[in-house]
Amino acid sequence: MEVVEAMTGRAWRVARGDVVVLTDIEGSQVADLFLVDADDVADGLSNGRTFDYGGTLTLSVGARLFSSRSRLMATIVADDVGVHDFLYAPCSQAMFERQYGVTAPHPNCLDNLTGALAAWDVPPATVTIPFNAFMNVSVAPDGGLTIAPPRSRAGDAIALRAERDLLVAVSACSASTCNGGGARPIGVDVRRA
Amino acid sequence: MEVVEAMTGRAWRVARGDVVVLTDIEGSQVADLFLVDADDVADGLSNGRTFDYGGTLTLSVGARLFSSRSRLMATIVADDVGVHDFLYAPCSQAMFERQYGVTAPHPNCLDNLTGALAAWDVPPATVTIPFNAFMNVSVAPDGGLTIAPPRSRAGDAIALRAERDLLVAVSACSASTCNGGGARPIGVDVRRA
Repeated sequence: MEVVEAMTGRAWRVARGDVVVLTDIEGSQVADLFLVDADDVADGLSNGRTFDYGGTLTLSVGARLFSSRSRLMATIVADDVGVHDFLYAPCSQAMFERQYGVTAPHPNCLDNLTGALAAWDVPPATVTIPFNAFMNVSVAPDGGLTIAPPRSRAGDAIALRAERDLLVAVSACSASTCNGGGARPIGVDVRRA
Repeated sequence: MEVVEAMTGRAWRVARGDVVVLTDIEGSQVADLFLVDADDVADGLSNGRTFDYGGTLTLSVGARLFSSRSRLMATIVADDVGVHDFLYAPCSQAMFERQYGVTAPHPNCLDNLTGALAAWDVPPATVTIPFNAFMNVSVAPDGGLTIAPPRSRAGDAIALRAERDLLVAVSACSASTCNGGGARPIGVDVRRA
């Protein structure tokens, strides 16, 4: 298992059939996951396509993640937690400034994801809404959104099978609120088919 | 008022302060609305940023729509209906093939929006998830999504004030399911500031 250190990001190229396992090593840590078509770096993960084709906001074992161009990207094949988010944009410098009044540069998932994917010349604009593994968002009947600490405990994992050749970027989220305080590493294990 | 004919799309350049009024002329018709920063055509509307900064999926008067790069794009200033969607990707040729078994070319919002914005050289990849005016989506407690006919009646409208110079694309949705059957035109009135 490789480690994505707290508040940083890394990326891998995986082949169709490979399984990517994300592990919350210490517990209560969100991992922003973004997938890009390795053969078309303008096409990335789409929450709206995934919601449409799956008919639900709740994504766990069996759920299929789609791209903006309707390509099947990955299937969730194992999940110790069952609570993840696909509604929220990745935290960004602008978000930290707007929501938290930060003025100095702050590590953030948007820069982590785009930075890690730059090695494959992925345009920053390709990175839209990540699948936020372990992020715990509830939707009230009136549509109101609430972020609570992740339910993941130390060692809990989620595994996704690549359904095509992909670039896989993972950021260990630096937004303390999402993690229930603090920021911790994420483990990534790419199991080659 | 200009008319976007059923199953087609059009786009306008508007200035900061202009108000765009979308009217469901006949009733029960969805209008897919996509906004692009006129000064940065790689930056468009983002559901995830809008959900984050607003804290809700429910967008009506007072709601502010943001771009991927966290720019404030527009504010909803009037709304006769109060039920709209920002979860679903625009219908597309691939969607009609996958969900409805269509094999021939079918008019669709993705092509309508990208086609209308091409006049300003907006890259197709900029067009992600539109604000789907009048689209009626409910979220069950378990996250399940249900599409019901729009609640809009003939003449109902929603108005958005541009908070920066924008390219505004509107598609009169061609997905019969979203419209409660059939496909109808949408009226667009750009009120210059």
